[in-house]
Amino acid sequence: MKRILLTGAAGTLGSAMRKALVGWVDELVLSDIVPITELNKGESFVKCDLGDFASVVALVKGCDGIIHLGGVSVEGSFENIMNGNLKGGYHIYEAARQQSVKRIVFASSNHLTGFHSREERLDDKSPMRPDSLYGVSKGFGELVAQYYFDKFGIESALIRIGSCLPKPVNRRMLATWLSERDLANLIKRVFVVNRLGCTMMYGASNNPWSWWDNSHANFIGWQPQDSSAEFEEEVLRNDPLLRSDDPVLLYQGGVFATAGHFEDK
Amino acid sequence: MKRILLTGAAGTLGSAMRKALVGWVDELVLSDIVPITELNKGESFVKCDLGDFASVVALVKGCDGIIHLGGVSVEGSFENIMNGNLKGGYHIYEAARQQSVKRIVFASSNHLTGFHSREERLDDKSPMRPDSLYGVSKGFGELVAQYYFDKFGIESALIRIGSCLPKPVNRRMLATWLSERDLANLIKRVFVVNRLGCTMMYGASNNPWSWWDNSHANFIGWQPQDSSAEFEEEVLRNDPLLRSDDPVLLYQGGVFATAGHFEDK
Amino acid sequence: MKRILLTGAAGTLGSAMRKALVGWVDELVLSDIVPITELNKGESFVKCDLGDFASVVALVKGCDGIIHLGGVSVEGSFENIMNGNLKGGYHIYEAARQQSVKRIVFASSNHLTGFHSREERLDDKSPMRPDSLYGVSKGFGELVAQYYFDKFGIESALIRIGSCLPKPVNRRMLATWLSERDLANLIKRVFVVNRLGCTMMYGASNNPWSWWDNSHANFIGWQPQDSSAEFEEEVLRNDPLLRSDDPVLLYQGGVFATAGHFEDK
Amino acid sequence: MKRILLTGAAGTLGSAMRKALVGWVDELVLSDIVPITELNKGESFVKCDLGDFASVVALVKGCDGIIHLGGVSVEGSFENIMNGNLKGGYHIYEAARQQSVKRIVFASSNHLTGFHSREERLDDKSPMRPDSLYGVSKGFGELVAQYYFDKFGIESALIRIGSCLPKPVNRRMLATWLSERDLANLIKRVFVVNRLGCTMMYGASNNPWSWWDNSHANFIGWQPQDSSAEFEEEVLRNDPLLRSDDPVLLYQGGVFATAGHFEDK
Amino acid sequence: MKRILLTGAAGTLGSAMRKALVGWVDELVLSDIVPITELNKGESFVKCDLGDFASVVALVKGCDGIIHLGGVSVEGSFENIMNGNLKGGYHIYEAARQQSVKRIVFASSNHLTGFHSREERLDDKSPMRPDSLYGVSKGFGELVAQYYFDKFGIESALIRIGSCLPKPVNRRMLATWLSERDLANLIKRVFVVNRLGCTMMYGASNNPWSWWDNSHANFIGWQPQDSSAEFEEEVLRNDPLLRSDDPVLLYQGGVFATAGHFEDK
Amino acid sequence: MKRILLTGAAGTLGSAMRKALVGWVDELVLSDIVPITELNKGESFVKCDLGDFASVVALVKGCDGIIHLGGVSVEGSFENIMNGNLKGGYHIYEAARQQSVKRIVFASSNHLTGFHSREERLDDKSPMRPDSLYGVSKGFGELVAQYYFDKFGIESALIRIGSCLPKPVNRRMLATWLSERDLANLIKRVFVVNRLGCTMMYGASNNPWSWWDNSHANFIGWQPQDSSAEFEEEVLRNDPLLRSDDPVLLYQGGVFATAGHFEDK
Repeated sequence: MKRILLTGAAGTLGSAMRKALVGWVDELVLSDIVPITELNKGESFVKCDLGDFASVVALVKGCDGIIHLGGVSVEGSFENIMNGNLKGGYHIYEAARQQSVKRIVFASSNHLTGFHSREERLDDKSPMRPDSLYGVSKGFGELVAQYYFDKFGIESALIRIGSCLPKPVNRRMLATWLSERDLANLIKRVFVVNRLGCTMMYGASNNPWSWWDNSHANFIGWQPQDSSAEFEEEVLRNDPLLRSDDPVLLYQGGVFATAGHFEDK
Repeated sequence: MKRILLTGAAGTLGSAMRKALVGWVDELVLSDIVPITELNKGESFVKCDLGDFASVVALVKGCDGIIHLGGVSVEGSFENIMNGNLKGGYHIYEAARQQSVKRIVFASSNHLTGFHSREERLDDKSPMRPDSLYGVSKGFGELVAQYYFDKFGIESALIRIGSCLPKPVNRRMLATWLSERDLANLIKRVFVVNRLGCTMMYGASNNPWSWWDNSHANFIGWQPQDSSAEFEEEVLRNDPLLRSDDPVLLYQGGVFATAGHFEDK
Repeated sequence: MKRILLTGAAGTLGSAMRKALVGWVDELVLSDIVPITELNKGESFVKCDLGDFASVVALVKGCDGIIHLGGVSVEGSFENIMNGNLKGGYHIYEAARQQSVKRIVFASSNHLTGFHSREERLDDKSPMRPDSLYGVSKGFGELVAQYYFDKFGIESALIRIGSCLPKPVNRRMLATWLSERDLANLIKRVFVVNRLGCTMMYGASNNPWSWWDNSHANFIGWQPQDSSAEFEEEVLRNDPLLRSDDPVLLYQGGVFATAGHFEDK
Repeated sequence: MKRILLTGAAGTLGSAMRKALVGWVDELVLSDIVPITELNKGESFVKCDLGDFASVVALVKGCDGIIHLGGVSVEGSFENIMNGNLKGGYHIYEAARQQSVKRIVFASSNHLTGFHSREERLDDKSPMRPDSLYGVSKGFGELVAQYYFDKFGIESALIRIGSCLPKPVNRRMLATWLSERDLANLIKRVFVVNRLGCTMMYGASNNPWSWWDNSHANFIGWQPQDSSAEFEEEVLRNDPLLRSDDPVLLYQGGVFATAGHFEDK
Repeated sequence: MKRILLTGAAGTLGSAMRKALVGWVDELVLSDIVPITELNKGESFVKCDLGDFASVVALVKGCDGIIHLGGVSVEGSFENIMNGNLKGGYHIYEAARQQSVKRIVFASSNHLTGFHSREERLDDKSPMRPDSLYGVSKGFGELVAQYYFDKFGIESALIRIGSCLPKPVNRRMLATWLSERDLANLIKRVFVVNRLGCTMMYGASNNPWSWWDNSHANFIGWQPQDSSAEFEEEVLRNDPLLRSDDPVLLYQGGVFATAGHFEDK
Repeated sequence: MKRILLTGAAGTLGSAMRKALVGWVDELVLSDIVPITELNKGESFVKCDLGDFASVVALVKGCDGIIHLGGVSVEGSFENIMNGNLKGGYHIYEAARQQSVKRIVFASSNHLTGFHSREERLDDKSPMRPDSLYGVSKGFGELVAQYYFDKFGIESALIRIGSCLPKPVNRRMLATWLSERDLANLIKRVFVVNRLGCTMMYGASNNPWSWWDNSHANFIGWQPQDSSAEFEEEVLRNDPLLRSDDPVLLYQGGVFATAGHFEDK
């Protein structure tokens, strides 16, 4: 692998991945709508609005693969989500097709299945139940990826990221935490395997409390090394027990599921 | 039921439903981007671009239910599909929420699952595998519907319409044919049942050749009365046997699955 | 078949079955805690409290099979249900074992699964979710039957009766109605088949609206002949459409599921 | 379809199919190890030992499809079964590959699943559980067919024939009966559909007592028209009720499952 | 957690849990029909017959949670089991409802599924197949718990305890062993999680030989730390290999499944 | 265990197992068509052609169990495979029946499921899809084993061996590798468990990349101790990344699936 594009490189997740992926490929092309000025060795930067197709085509040109973390990453107005995630998602895949890029990591989200109960165990056959417009847009992205795989052979890892932070900071994250190291290792592995297909994976570390089953994707050989267990005592101490009928506890999406429509706020 | 909105009323499907639903409700509000001049008794018409939110809100106001057949109904450019089906789909549901409309029929499509093999039997647990941007946009619409049900309680029938024509005209339609009468009966039933939920149904008549299983939706009590069997002899005579490795026979979506990207053409 | 015991013979269901089964066997032994004075040809009557084991043993003696409709058939106090259904159910099976009766029809109830949603389709793998102490007691009876089959080879048909009435009288019964004729035919068939096993069946006629799937029991060859469709128009006219979020519509058990604890009343 | 080969044409099943298929194709090439002298119009005969590869190649040459009913059709010595069904089955498929025949009906048997319980409902996912060496050899044939489909694209209908007789003559056949007309219609349909794949089907008519589910193969559009119901009364009268723990009632294969090893006899 | 009730505190399991839970809560209220005289710090004792409802209400009053190990724990007469487990189980839940206790650990048993084969792997969807009246009574208890959850929101952990002993002492226990430490940790976790639902779990340590799958309950985050592997050599040496057709080896319940009816003995 | 037969003892796998099983039983009877001259203590040798029934009966006589590694272990002509694997497989089981040998390890192969996609996860319910005549013959062997279990109670472990070599030497083997130690431990365990049934197991070590799920066989208590992870870096360095649409990457069987018919070569 010579040249990999990383979209959303200025965001929290993008910054963490930049750090974790230093030295991994010949060139990591960073992209964001926000400028990045300090570059590591082996990094280059291209400013790009994912809503502008011509720019995306130029961005993708010459890349061997794409790590697509860009777009809107929280609930927002339909207009913003449409621009960043609907148009943005389509633009990435269509540009990849035109430029013959064959493998993409797509940062999907657990909010695509956020209306499932916390007592359910999800796997690759669980239906999508988005908890937000944001979640809906991630479902759109996954469908685009599936379509470009079935019709044009572009392979994708659709990672439904849980909570990718330095450590879990509340009880919900004891189930959803994904360490930055585990995510970086998963990304690397996506470009190591001979064949990827269009494979959805839940993005969580090896946590004892867990809602998700990735065994369908064992063929990729990813084995998360971190666990929320290390932080359990601290989290339980700081995050009090709620009444079990508190609505926020019913759904995997947490506050995304109990919040009203975006414009309500 | 007093007042039901029918979008896409000037299209083929819309026209057929107008005929089939005459006298069914007090007022059938027709809507399309194309004008309709001849109105039956009990019909009114409102011209509306579904891509314009304010117009959609005005359109929806005062309706007791919506039959949403509008938007783009074949493969097209992303721009067209985004306007008609992504924006359009969102607008219908968000307007319904604001105007307290509680029940919607959404015309989804078999092209949302068009990359499944013709030897597969699909049910409500089968994953989405769109065969076109059009199919992707129908998946988006279904996700929006699911979201508005889980969060706001708006009920939907998501009908993945096969081939709704006066009669089946090729071999594929022996499996996918949906008579206009059966569709009309299904629509009526949606507004008769006490509780609908957010229920996906494959839209096909009682055909002997069949790819789809609707038994999960038996609680609605719809039983299609027509069958492609009546037309089988005629179809088999007119539509020659292809080689079984012809790509168009591999996928349920037929030519949608084997066509290239829209802009290719 | 010479001699069959019918418990609960004085109840509504029992009376209907007496009528439907006239002339079916050499002797139909009727039993109830309430006296029955008018006997048809081929019927005899034995008064019996199912809570008294010695009486039950005497009752069962010499019978070739049992149709067990007796016990409490609505929600009630735990004491009553314990006597009629827990003790009563155990007594019937233990007496059958001691007296070598090998085949039993057990009138179970849809209230054993009454907390399932009306949008769910149940089959033989669906978990028990009783909506009442009555429903719990039916689950106890099914477990007793399963135990006596696995250990002692006594075969049972566990019929989760829906609504066995002359005709459906409300919307819920469009799904749950079981005609008396269909039930009688099922009972007859239980004693015709070579091998019955311990087989649960949902007791509903061939209704278009339906929540239940009996295909696992096709080996018995029962095919209900009646349908609620005949009564649909009348029922829909008389039973108004409720708001779809009315709690009574959420669960298959209807008012059983929304009622509080028995002693509350 | 011009020219179809029918192996095992002198057997009971073969004779019945000859009658049912008169006039169906331009030429029906009959084959058997036993001579057939009286030929209908459109029939020709070739004597052939399926254990001899060169003869089979010659037989298959120039045919557009094969209906393979030949080989051993009851339990027998391993030597006989090896010759007729193992070598014979392989020869048919390998000859078809060499001669570019693309579609085959293979007469498999319910004895391939004869050790399943009569209370089980089988579908296309049920494991093979042969009740005899004969049953094992039918499993071998199905695996050969699957292999030639996956590797060489030869399509097969694998019909696990129940009891193909003029009418059901005992209680077991109330479940397993396949009318000759229904089998003939299925065979015809195999050559009418655009795409067949390698599809297993249970061969039974539309019987009320039934152990088998063919819904996975609905895409073929076969709907059996006959039913054992017509003969039920007669069969029940003539075939007495056995004790339900009689071993012959435990398994679908009946006496095949309870018989010992062939050489025992 | 301030005050937890432990029923059956004088039994083997109760005594082990007392030891393992020392210092865990402010007050552990012990209860048994047998007196307990030596109390640890933080323990109190109330003598109570679970068959007496008024006593149970008094017992439950003021508790924040219940660990219900009480009742009959081996096969017995129906009268004993009815008193301890049917009445007792109902009394605990009804008292909890009246006294607003919201979370209960219910000691169910592997004998509720004891008639499953040892070659089967059970999960939360496996049907109940009790091997004894005792097993039947545990099923009754689980149904009561499910009912009180669905109707009144009382949460339960239904732990189907395998063999909770200091160490495994025969071959069967290599699969069924549950260390006292693992059980105590599971009990603690039940009161730590935000939301429990009504969750069945198989009670076994992390044994290499295993019949049960708890992955549906991963959301609770319990991970057993002990394993029968440590004792395997010793057990295999002391417990000889039986013939594989010995009936006691067929069923998970072991001698419970092969024993006759209680009164036989 | 006193006396165990090891067929195919002169082959690569046989030689490895001889080494791994030294001292395990009183007598290890080696057999092959090729002579073995150097014998370890506790080993004896009998030359035997598995295609000759009388020799196989003599060979099996007096053995307490069989480890059947013999026969053809790569793709070959039908004649060779028929002799070694069809006749050979039948002879082993029929001889075992006649000589009352009750437990057999049968070396099946991953090539019985070689036409499954590498993105699929297989378990005990996955259909057989052989990638070669060799694979077909392994399916025949498994059916014979199932038949002799269902009818005669002979127990088998059907081990679908992946790649049993000292270490994995290409990328495919990162998924399929089975260490010799793990296989030997599995064989030992087969003869330690009280009850084996007829149990299929995928033969792979504890590899991070994995296609196969053995959890249905957890009751046997086998836990592989080796992992391909140790060799991953070396393998990835030496075995270059292929294009993901290279046909050899599509199927689990690798070159077996893409090779043509044996006689082609």
